[in-house]
Amino acid sequence: MLKVPDHQVAGHQAGDGKLGPLIDDSGHFYKPLQNDGRGSHELAFYTSFSTDKRIPDDIRKFFPVFYGTRHLEASDGSGLYPHLALEDTVSSRINPSVLDAKIGSRTWYPQAAEDYIIKCLKKDRETTSLELGFRVSGLRVYGNKETGFWKPDKKCVLNFSIEDTRLALRKFVSSNPSTDSDIKPDCSFASTVYGGPAGILAQLLELKSWFEKQTIFHFYSCSVLMVYEKESILQGRNSGAEIKLVDFAHVIEGKGVIDHNFLGGLCSLIKLISDIVTSPSA
Amino acid sequence: MLKVPDHQVAGHQAGDGKLGPLIDDSGHFYKPLQNDGRGSHELAFYTSFSTDKRIPDDIRKFFPVFYGTRHLEASDGSGLYPHLALEDTVSSRINPSVLDAKIGSRTWYPQAAEDYIIKCLKKDRETTSLELGFRVSGLRVYGNKETGFWKPDKKCVLNFSIEDTRLALRKFVSSNPSTDSDIKPDCSFASTVYGGPAGILAQLLELKSWFEKQTIFHFYSCSVLMVYEKESILQGRNSGAEIKLVDFAHVIEGKGVIDHNFLGGLCSLIKLISDIVTSPSA
Repeated sequence: MLKVPDHQVAGHQAGDGKLGPLIDDSGHFYKPLQNDGRGSHELAFYTSFSTDKRIPDDIRKFFPVFYGTRHLEASDGSGLYPHLALEDTVSSRINPSVLDAKIGSRTWYPQAAEDYIIKCLKKDRETTSLELGFRVSGLRVYGNKETGFWKPDKKCVLNFSIEDTRLALRKFVSSNPSTDSDIKPDCSFASTVYGGPAGILAQLLELKSWFEKQTIFHFYSCSVLMVYEKESILQGRNSGAEIKLVDFAHVIEGKGVIDHNFLGGLCSLIKLISDIVTSPSA
Repeated sequence: MLKVPDHQVAGHQAGDGKLGPLIDDSGHFYKPLQNDGRGSHELAFYTSFSTDKRIPDDIRKFFPVFYGTRHLEASDGSGLYPHLALEDTVSSRINPSVLDAKIGSRTWYPQAAEDYIIKCLKKDRETTSLELGFRVSGLRVYGNKETGFWKPDKKCVLNFSIEDTRLALRKFVSSNPSTDSDIKPDCSFASTVYGGPAGILAQLLELKSWFEKQTIFHFYSCSVLMVYEKESILQGRNSGAEIKLVDFAHVIEGKGVIDHNFLGGLCSLIKLISDIVTSPSA
């Protein structure tokens, strides 16, 4: 019943005897509680968030539904292990294209331990986080039955420059993502996936207007996951374009101040995507 | 003709044989070119900005007009020294109340020298910059003919907590700014100075919408100056509420990316001010 999801583009991955998330046929995604406090921290966030009356319903849809914790046979064969039971918004889809963008120019919070801050700051400076306000942590784009998915490897993604990031956001909505660098990505799905009243850009703008006023949580090292189904578009149906926030191991209380770090990065992502919608053939 | 301005609330100040800005009766503000490259950097910004066709007119009004450079007798008595000749938006007013907010949770830019980064990061962490996205660098609020100005000293302002900052933004628009901490600031001028179609909030929102799209410049360690005239309000005239961006010694090219660092901090300032407009008696 339980299996390793094949859609994951970032984070710890199960398989080869390693501890990682699992899925089942009921549409649940089971994320093992990370040790060193991160797991309990993420659990605390989901518990608090899922009962917080201050979160508007139209914002709640951008977060995975939380079903509590489950003790499951861990993917590394180490026996029963606690997992967060979450809504699986990706695996239930047909050949989903997925992009994971870690938001914020700073992935560390002011009260963190000094060695953690130094580690994060180094990574923020080595990736696009510092300059761009976010970094792509992973992506996979569906081509067709023959080619399958285009999925650049983790190391390559971590080395993305600002230009590479811009290109990845174009390839994500192109019918020719995997072609060599001489051929321009065609952005054929830009207007359907990014654009339109139900597109990713509209959803990001909805999220942005909440971040302009919410002072409940600060989301450090949290990602926006963007998902859509190419075949669905080709069959003339809805693209299924959707955004979800994921990874809450470093969420802290907002204490009356907006999350300017997340908001700034989100606005930067919005600008890049809106440039693609405006000029898909640029 | 040339004299030391008395309205300055932050930055290097002339007087006691020190090098600092000067004003004259023509409405000009003369800022000595700082050495160690900062002066030439600021001059380069003003030169480039003042001729850049991409800056909309309704945004240009938020920047001081630049009149070129002048060699003037320096305030420290060291002889002729190059100064930036700028529009003086403050000294020409009657008893202006002024608040200087240095915008951005990060005051250093990615390409800066390592020792400069360490120095700035330390200061950003010690002040409210990191947590709040901006820090108050100085303020003075006019009371009346007897009390004159309430002007907390530099050291005290640098030690502002988030709560102190919130309070300072309330005192800035209160008729009882200097009273002891037991008495709440009355925020009597909140609706006139911060609110309304020509108020500071409306101007900040105009600036924000430009920062959501402009990718020409990144403004590090730059301040938003807020000014108004209390007596003007009491006489039933316009408050003269105005914002100006100042201090451009650390502006770098945007290279197609928005200034998410400035934008995030600006949104945080906007949230605090809009809270005061909504609940002046909170």
